[in-house]
Amino acid sequence: MTEVLKATSPADWRPLDPENTLYVELSGGRVVIELAPGFAPLHVANIKTLTRARYFDALSIIRVQDNYVVQWGDPDNRHPMPAGIGKVAPEFDSPTAAHVPFTRLPDGDVYAPEVGFSDGLPVARSPSLHRTWLAHCYGMVGVGRDLDVQSGSGAELYVVIGHAPRHLDRNVALVGRVVKGMELLTALPRGGAEMGFYTKTEAPAPIKSIRIAADVPVAERSNLEVIRTDSPAFTALIESRRNRPEEFFKVAAGRIDLCNVPIAAREQHPAAAHSP
Amino acid sequence: MTEVLKATSPADWRPLDPENTLYVELSGGRVVIELAPGFAPLHVANIKTLTRARYFDALSIIRVQDNYVVQWGDPDNRHPMPAGIGKVAPEFDSPTAAHVPFTRLPDGDVYAPEVGFSDGLPVARSPSLHRTWLAHCYGMVGVGRDLDVQSGSGAELYVVIGHAPRHLDRNVALVGRVVKGMELLTALPRGGAEMGFYTKTEAPAPIKSIRIAADVPVAERSNLEVIRTDSPAFTALIESRRNRPEEFFKVAAGRIDLCNVPIAAREQHPAAAHSP
Repeated sequence: MTEVLKATSPADWRPLDPENTLYVELSGGRVVIELAPGFAPLHVANIKTLTRARYFDALSIIRVQDNYVVQWGDPDNRHPMPAGIGKVAPEFDSPTAAHVPFTRLPDGDVYAPEVGFSDGLPVARSPSLHRTWLAHCYGMVGVGRDLDVQSGSGAELYVVIGHAPRHLDRNVALVGRVVKGMELLTALPRGGAEMGFYTKTEAPAPIKSIRIAADVPVAERSNLEVIRTDSPAFTALIESRRNRPEEFFKVAAGRIDLCNVPIAAREQHPAAAHSP
Repeated sequence: MTEVLKATSPADWRPLDPENTLYVELSGGRVVIELAPGFAPLHVANIKTLTRARYFDALSIIRVQDNYVVQWGDPDNRHPMPAGIGKVAPEFDSPTAAHVPFTRLPDGDVYAPEVGFSDGLPVARSPSLHRTWLAHCYGMVGVGRDLDVQSGSGAELYVVIGHAPRHLDRNVALVGRVVKGMELLTALPRGGAEMGFYTKTEAPAPIKSIRIAADVPVAERSNLEVIRTDSPAFTALIESRRNRPEEFFKVAAGRIDLCNVPIAAREQHPAAAHSP
């Protein structure tokens, strides 16, 4: 993989859009989330409104369920919702759009007829349903909800930290992906109550703040770029993972699962990072 | 799942065999590993010899790579190997044995022609190769090795802590599965050096001891039983996960990935636990 990434050109990468990037500030450091307004515009709009109203600041991570999710929110509804946050349509999937690039994986999938990548995100598609949806891979960010499919406003968010719980696909709105800082979430103590919620005697991990990158001074931003998933470089990366060239591997898998493809991210070139 | 487990009968469960169960004692508690002598007899024999020689005691967890593995061993070879530990055959796969029960999953697999469960373990099979191998699912325990396929003695072990790295299948000897205590491994701080190794300034997690359950006084054992994967109860469990009956799910997956099937374990009934 290192070799493949070395061989990329600047055109194979794109910077994160500051207007659709979240910084979750924890005591251990910053988690960077790229939002997916193309797939869940209503939920992303809610999350941005909540963020700009400082709704998340001083909330805590309240649930860490092993091999499943890390979740934050305000379970006791102690923080008032800002104006403009209402019920939104489910956004669990969307019509397949011809103009959205789709880099299809050749090896099939247990859960969906077609899988691949669109705009840096793992997606599944059904040609017969003409629907596309984001897939619950490691690092994906979803909107917690109750039984009502319209009950997830975006005020309660979770991150997948285990083997992809793909049964959640099409049942929850996914709104983005953690691009950097997963280890700040995955190494948190697991909660002792049912479903990994922290008990009253366990200290939840405080969230110092959540900010939209565009609202943070340029000098304090994490200037990251991610590989373009519609680039030849990404196709080469996939191939290098389907058939690992390293001498360690005696039998090549010859195949790859959607959630095993790394969507590479790195620090932007300093010159690019400091241009406005 | 709770409902399915409630409906099981005692015959749907089997106790762990104390002679093939490891207790890894960490400062946070005990990790219980069920060994798989049926799949990797030579490696399991080595691990038992190493354990009984107290080889692992006072070693440390030296590597925690996010979304991949936790690993322990003696990278600087400071602990002498006990007598009888030599090179062993790879044991990366084995001939498919007709007498071994195989509960096949109906939904296919990205990596292998057939997948399912044998003796409480996730396995993959190739009818054309007439070979069976253990699959790198979350919680599986493998033998670290160098480039030489015979270099893994069992002195260096790893546990899968992320999305199943199935590309390792047939390239490494898997020797068992963590039945209890995964959260003691998964919540460890990630290592800051390449491949998740701890740097010199990061404190590795000490291993107090590793013991074979049979060598531990009965009163100090973890008396666990696991669901029999060739039982109707387990088939019902699989079905309850393929099509979740809970009201939360609006779209049933109708399918399941090998590594998403939970192999249930629980405390033995007290009466059974205290019989010798």
